[in-house]
Amino acid sequence: MEEQIIGGASDDIVSIGPKIRKKTFAKKEFPRKVRNERHSMQSGKGLQVMFFGGVGKIGDNMTALRYGDDILVIDVGVGFAEPDMPGVDLVIPDMSWLKAHKDMIKGIAITHAHEDHIGSLPYFLDDVKATVYGSKLSIALIEGKLREFPKVNMKSQAVNPGGAVQIGCFNVEFIHVNHSIPGSYALSITTPVGVVLVSGDFKIDFTPISGETTDLSRMGELGRKGVLLFMCESTNIERPGMTMSERVVVQTLDEIMASHKQNRIIVTSFASNVHRVQQIMELARKYNRKVAFSGRSMINTMEIAMKIGEVKFDHKLIVDIEKADKLKDEELLILGTGSQGQEHTALDRMVKGEVANIKIGSNDLVIFSSSPVPGNEKSVTNIINQFIALGAKVIYDDLSDVHASGHACQTEFMIVHKLIKPRYFIPMHGEIKHLKYHEQFAISMGVKPQNIVVPHVGSVVEVSNSGIRELNDVLAGEKIVDGKTVYDVDNAVVRDRLQLAEDGLCVVVFGVNKNSGKLVNMPELIPRGFIYPNELSGIVKEARQVLIDAVNNAAVENEKPDWNELKSTTKKVLTNLFFKKTKRKPVIIPIILEV
Amino acid sequence: MEEQIIGGASDDIVSIGPKIRKKTFAKKEFPRKVRNERHSMQSGKGLQVMFFGGVGKIGDNMTALRYGDDILVIDVGVGFAEPDMPGVDLVIPDMSWLKAHKDMIKGIAITHAHEDHIGSLPYFLDDVKATVYGSKLSIALIEGKLREFPKVNMKSQAVNPGGAVQIGCFNVEFIHVNHSIPGSYALSITTPVGVVLVSGDFKIDFTPISGETTDLSRMGELGRKGVLLFMCESTNIERPGMTMSERVVVQTLDEIMASHKQNRIIVTSFASNVHRVQQIMELARKYNRKVAFSGRSMINTMEIAMKIGEVKFDHKLIVDIEKADKLKDEELLILGTGSQGQEHTALDRMVKGEVANIKIGSNDLVIFSSSPVPGNEKSVTNIINQFIALGAKVIYDDLSDVHASGHACQTEFMIVHKLIKPRYFIPMHGEIKHLKYHEQFAISMGVKPQNIVVPHVGSVVEVSNSGIRELNDVLAGEKIVDGKTVYDVDNAVVRDRLQLAEDGLCVVVFGVNKNSGKLVNMPELIPRGFIYPNELSGIVKEARQVLIDAVNNAAVENEKPDWNELKSTTKKVLTNLFFKKTKRKPVIIPIILEV
Repeated sequence: MEEQIIGGASDDIVSIGPKIRKKTFAKKEFPRKVRNERHSMQSGKGLQVMFFGGVGKIGDNMTALRYGDDILVIDVGVGFAEPDMPGVDLVIPDMSWLKAHKDMIKGIAITHAHEDHIGSLPYFLDDVKATVYGSKLSIALIEGKLREFPKVNMKSQAVNPGGAVQIGCFNVEFIHVNHSIPGSYALSITTPVGVVLVSGDFKIDFTPISGETTDLSRMGELGRKGVLLFMCESTNIERPGMTMSERVVVQTLDEIMASHKQNRIIVTSFASNVHRVQQIMELARKYNRKVAFSGRSMINTMEIAMKIGEVKFDHKLIVDIEKADKLKDEELLILGTGSQGQEHTALDRMVKGEVANIKIGSNDLVIFSSSPVPGNEKSVTNIINQFIALGAKVIYDDLSDVHASGHACQTEFMIVHKLIKPRYFIPMHGEIKHLKYHEQFAISMGVKPQNIVVPHVGSVVEVSNSGIRELNDVLAGEKIVDGKTVYDVDNAVVRDRLQLAEDGLCVVVFGVNKNSGKLVNMPELIPRGFIYPNELSGIVKEARQVLIDAVNNAAVENEKPDWNELKSTTKKVLTNLFFKKTKRKPVIIPIILEV
Repeated sequence: MEEQIIGGASDDIVSIGPKIRKKTFAKKEFPRKVRNERHSMQSGKGLQVMFFGGVGKIGDNMTALRYGDDILVIDVGVGFAEPDMPGVDLVIPDMSWLKAHKDMIKGIAITHAHEDHIGSLPYFLDDVKATVYGSKLSIALIEGKLREFPKVNMKSQAVNPGGAVQIGCFNVEFIHVNHSIPGSYALSITTPVGVVLVSGDFKIDFTPISGETTDLSRMGELGRKGVLLFMCESTNIERPGMTMSERVVVQTLDEIMASHKQNRIIVTSFASNVHRVQQIMELARKYNRKVAFSGRSMINTMEIAMKIGEVKFDHKLIVDIEKADKLKDEELLILGTGSQGQEHTALDRMVKGEVANIKIGSNDLVIFSSSPVPGNEKSVTNIINQFIALGAKVIYDDLSDVHASGHACQTEFMIVHKLIKPRYFIPMHGEIKHLKYHEQFAISMGVKPQNIVVPHVGSVVEVSNSGIRELNDVLAGEKIVDGKTVYDVDNAVVRDRLQLAEDGLCVVVFGVNKNSGKLVNMPELIPRGFIYPNELSGIVKEARQVLIDAVNNAAVENEKPDWNELKSTTKKVLTNLFFKKTKRKPVIIPIILEV
């Protein structure tokens, strides 16, 4: 047997049908001005602010300041896969420009340890050897994270609130702010051209349950002395008023526990909100309950936070989840992961009956001390409904004050704008609607319109005493992490998956005489995710006939068949027939045997 | 060449890896008690209320009342595909029980013409010949819909507000209610055991812009005489207060238009909210603008509503969208479809520059007079961001009172509960969290706990003067419409697609000697949506070697190969290797040639 296998090249994608829901948003959002020279630098006397993520989209926050030959990187976060990226694990910023200039990177400053600010570090530190600066908790959590990446080493230095370090020509002061994770900082960066204040993610909690209020005095002092540029997060800029205090949340949880003394209580929250978790543990002690953790991330984070002294708890309070069913309902509080309804987390496994001997029933009270991250609304609703279907009572943030956001609302933005009174302003950390809203907001707070730049991914903004302006874009964008590979966002592999997901595929196998070009056997059709085999049998005769006709018509006496032509003909005739008969456009994979 | 093709049976699905996000929620939500006899009837002296959809999930509303040999069907709606149903067009109720008893169906009463109340009619009326009753607008919109289904005929009868028809042993009175589509009714059904009041979808608008307030007097009169059973929608049961009046929306739109006289204005809304669309057209006239429609569904719906006299507008006000660019910005208002951010709608095509000569820019004001349907939050945010990225100003319901819900909030529920004072109560139209909440709400309104049943899909509830109880479940559930086929929800085709979407596939082709069982050529690997061909080339040598070893080891001297064994061995060794090398589990499709 002599044979040649044809087919399956990554370029043969049949035309994408009308049902494909692929959004081309990321590309269309900002018309880019990327320069041809991929890795070139732009000269200029001012300070350059470069945006590698976190603007135009929530997530993958990454910014750099450059002055002369010194670069300071601020945050190295991840984004999350969009619905049009099936199978994709993570989205990370395109960091190739920075890696090409790694010798200039004098340090990496981390505002706080949420994933969208630190999650891409393993993909950055594999190449860039600069020191990472951040709060004690941030550094400890990053170290914990890097244990999964044994080949990546980190040099780091923890900085206390109010502390400052010299990083190249930048003097970076770390200013305490309230957020939904402790150890969160704003950065006051003294540069050769003036002071740049980066808010990080923040809110102003006048009655925090632990620690201090956002350091407003220092911000006022800086504002009084003169801030050249303010770069501020924008997540909740559309919301009027003040963000609820963490104290209200704890009071609400206390009231709920006081009025549900007979119930078994299950609480979920964000694992990184260690102060809230600690408070819940304190309430458990108050109401004579033991605490059982379910889900690795929460107990891991608490252990790290305890080790560095950020939280305190008595280990005697904790009971192993495997032994939790030995306790009476009124003696137990379970702290579980999975507030977003993700699969394989504690809550998801609980409703499936997969956690120890925990059987959810009518004496369970489940508290979602959390809120859905945008995009997760449906999965959160689903997990809530599953608990209710099993008889549990569920309390969530629509019904009661069991969660407070970590982000400032408009009143808080007014306070910081008025304290800082910057000459120039750049809104960051938000979708474009948030950034544009924040631009108008800043104008209403007194910033001159011409002194504001709304950046996009790739923006290079030059700031000096004489003005603020956009230079040409730098190479930037997103990459996706899929299994062990880092890809471009728009790639044939993910495009193929989208089409496979819509309409499945059909493999077609047949042999062709290498001299006559005539079909030598009956074509075989193998459908997957397309239609049922029994449905296919209804049209297989017709499909074979159109193939036989097409192949034999293409054959030319005494000429070798044109294999590429044959392949595309096969795809065309089958696509047309299938669409007519089934209204679907499966991927056609021709396997043609040369006999 | 002699060959045998092996592979591709629909049952050979490799084990589903941890990344598959398939939810088994629909199945787990309610442990079913479906009886073995698929189509049997349950005897009983009372009235039976049967639930075929719309309970435990928003959408596909369908209920039936049965007394003796008479069945009245109420609403025949569609649901929408979940994220774990790639490529699926629609979800419809499993109507097989009703179709098996079609001779007993005396009529179909429609509360209103939203898709989740009428959308499955084409899949019901193909078999069931009963008359459809509803408002003039409902009947007209259903007729419009059925034009796409030329084989389906409908007998229908329009009923005016306050009118009543005898349907079998049921006297059905149609009571006017406010909702986000005109011609919406509650149903007062006089049955042999007493009055059943079905709310339909409703709100109470004390200051509607056209027509009357929900007929509270009639509800009061019925309550005074005695309502046996109240069945009430539950969509917004968690929300305190009153739903905003449509009048506020129109006033807000008026103010916005008054303060944006120089802008071109683009408004999107739900096409079926014809009174709102009419009001927007009135505002256009007031501000000397012509109206251009973009998107078929809106103009179609308006034409139908105008034909039956539900709305009035002057055709001279309308300008063809193709000629709209001839007008100055301040002379034009565009009414477009696509408020949910769906692809291929007017708004989506506008931001892509595909609508006539409309180029979105900084003089455009875009108003979303709508709200995201749950699950669409992200796509709505995306389309808003795209308009903003193009320079337009966008106003949406988070920022301004440009939309009012069509569903009652708690104060309105209190009013109807107190007017109707039912003996028995069944909450409907909601996720389980809404139904359970409504149960507690009804108790607080004075209904006895033992007089309430919270139903699920398949529930049969018997009501008589002596009590309310659940009988065994009836065969019910969901079917999916995919292309031209109606499937079960949990089917191999959609399961395959989910796996294909996650990790793609790899076709493997090789020949085996039919006598020795030995490999006769080098296996070929063809990846799709799995990894790039160049990545595959890095492991193709190893993949071939494990295959050669596995096939040749399986070969037994003088024995014909076991083709099934060979197929599963191929899948196993490749799956293991691929997972080790790439962390992915593609679908393996073996094509084995017998030589």
